[in-house]
Amino acid sequence: MRTSRRGAVDPFIVMDVMEAARAAEAAGRSIIHMEVGQPGTGAPAAALDRLARDMAAGPLGYTVALGLPELRARIARHYRDWYGLDLDPNRVVVTAGASGAFILAFTALFDGGARVGLGEPCYPSYRQILHALGMTPVGIPTSLGARFQPVPDDVAAHALDGLLVASPANPTGTMLSRQDLAGLAAASAESGAALISDEIYHGLTYGERAVSALEVTDEAVVVNSFSKYFSMTGWRVGWMVVPEAMVRTVERLSQNLFICPSHAAQRLALHAMDCTEELDANVAVYAENRRLMLEGLPRAGFAALAPPDGAFYVYADVGDHTDDALAFSREILDGAGVAVTPGVDFDPARGRRWLRFSYARSTADIREGLARLERFMAARRAAAE
Amino acid sequence: MRTSRRGAVDPFIVMDVMEAARAAEAAGRSIIHMEVGQPGTGAPAAALDRLARDMAAGPLGYTVALGLPELRARIARHYRDWYGLDLDPNRVVVTAGASGAFILAFTALFDGGARVGLGEPCYPSYRQILHALGMTPVGIPTSLGARFQPVPDDVAAHALDGLLVASPANPTGTMLSRQDLAGLAAASAESGAALISDEIYHGLTYGERAVSALEVTDEAVVVNSFSKYFSMTGWRVGWMVVPEAMVRTVERLSQNLFICPSHAAQRLALHAMDCTEELDANVAVYAENRRLMLEGLPRAGFAALAPPDGAFYVYADVGDHTDDALAFSREILDGAGVAVTPGVDFDPARGRRWLRFSYARSTADIREGLARLERFMAARRAAAE
Repeated sequence: MRTSRRGAVDPFIVMDVMEAARAAEAAGRSIIHMEVGQPGTGAPAAALDRLARDMAAGPLGYTVALGLPELRARIARHYRDWYGLDLDPNRVVVTAGASGAFILAFTALFDGGARVGLGEPCYPSYRQILHALGMTPVGIPTSLGARFQPVPDDVAAHALDGLLVASPANPTGTMLSRQDLAGLAAASAESGAALISDEIYHGLTYGERAVSALEVTDEAVVVNSFSKYFSMTGWRVGWMVVPEAMVRTVERLSQNLFICPSHAAQRLALHAMDCTEELDANVAVYAENRRLMLEGLPRAGFAALAPPDGAFYVYADVGDHTDDALAFSREILDGAGVAVTPGVDFDPARGRRWLRFSYARSTADIREGLARLERFMAARRAAAE
Repeated sequence: MRTSRRGAVDPFIVMDVMEAARAAEAAGRSIIHMEVGQPGTGAPAAALDRLARDMAAGPLGYTVALGLPELRARIARHYRDWYGLDLDPNRVVVTAGASGAFILAFTALFDGGARVGLGEPCYPSYRQILHALGMTPVGIPTSLGARFQPVPDDVAAHALDGLLVASPANPTGTMLSRQDLAGLAAASAESGAALISDEIYHGLTYGERAVSALEVTDEAVVVNSFSKYFSMTGWRVGWMVVPEAMVRTVERLSQNLFICPSHAAQRLALHAMDCTEELDANVAVYAENRRLMLEGLPRAGFAALAPPDGAFYVYADVGDHTDDALAFSREILDGAGVAVTPGVDFDPARGRRWLRFSYARSTADIREGLARLERFMAARRAAAE
């Protein structure tokens, strides 16, 4: 049978852990899920009610490719509300999740073989989407000193055609300051490289708010999603903000590659943007979960943590305990009944000594998970002595 | 600003017509829409009711990348019910519309520069998706004698890496017989070319049922959609059936490129598959509309029609009236108040003498549109004499 080279993308290592967790639960075991990358909450209740009325009112056929005009206008207003920015709604493109936005952004910006830099550790699908499109993902080692983010010199040093950054990042939760973003934008502009800023975890921050690349440049492509803060995972709707000169290209690509994002999801997104109270209550839960994690993980023996500025992850250096994070995550699943993610998906080079802990589920789950981790690690230390 | 060559896809010519139609309506004119490519009906009412209950019951988070297992099983059963085939549900992949299926299929099968044959006239996005992925669309001229479909010799003659066929086709409505499909499958196998069969208009046929490529080979990639027969345009959900050996590759691509299709759309699709009565009533409307078209179009002066086996289109050779179908479609819009699609989007070479008439809207609209066309063309003939 015919197959392509570009289609041969790596499997997610975490799938093994998730399958083992599923099998353990099917066998009757209680498992706490600290491996998940999605909110445990659903879309806001009032938004779902309004969508149900929309559904009863008439067919939800195709929308125009760039998305419902009222949603694009509402997203532009969001930039005024959150960032104090005056954004032309014409630059807003509604997409089939952040995933759809990456396909559109990469296709509009890059040809085959283009070198696109990714600070490692990072969301593994960046690499795989680029590979599937015939482009060249370039892993950039990052350091704790730079909060595990790329630095301006990386753009020229790696001869990049593009640089993708995420703030808050997955798996680390670290953020880029306004100054960091400005430095990366300037270095990209100087090299003629495109800057793509993944901002899907904006709104899930616990001190300083996250800075948008739009605050420092109009030339970046910003990717966002309704899946995290807006808690609409599964509906597959997100957005991009693109430079004015790129709008027509992205419109034509979107018409052909997607026709349009889900109409129902677009309406739900529009309604969800008014549900600030319910959404901020979700964030308060994450904040409490994070507080518990930062207290409980060190107590369990996981003290070397990336600075957890935002998102709902803690990335821990577990090199004191193992040099095989995958085996260690299986040991934790079996011994503690807690599912965690080994770092190897995020960082093929150094991920063997890191674990990602998610705190996206309920506070009760987080308490129980931390207690299990503490007991398990204490017994493990005792056994080793 | 940085842009890619592959991102420079052609605009849809029909967008000009649609914008002119919109402007005319905004100015208070009555326009009959024979340019649309989507049902005027919405999703089945009972299915929407059941989805509303699902939405109230709990969060609709990510599904697994290949789609809800119960939907994959239900689709497999559909092949037994409609085609008498015994299909392994494991080969069924739920996708973000047929659009998502094409991205997955092309990426899994082809690398940059691969030559993929398209019988012209055809759905214009085939070309543009291939171009955007860095592949090479190869237009194949077709003939009335072959029902405007590719023939087996085309595979070797054009040195194809893949061949994409559609039956019923857009814009012609013509179908491939079992023998036609078997011939194309054999020629593809002999050349080592992949065969991709677009079957999104299955169920919208008015005599013989449409034959699936799965009835003649297990090696084809079959693409289908819930947008046409199942009347779920705008929900963006479709499916693929792939060879057994391709399932893992497509699963990994789907995980990375899409995460999953819309969960709500998948549930709605599952419910819609039980709504045969409402869906077949829609088909009865199309059948009546088609009968009116085949009577009314020749009366208006459009007698040279492609054999309208299925879908909801009639493709008419208007070379007796014009050699500029785009200008002619504007003339019809202005003079008759009927929006139609010029052939140039479907066939850059010969489309200047063709128009596509859609009969997807209500029967009342079709009657009125035909009456307007007849009056307009009579006046046009009178003016020319």
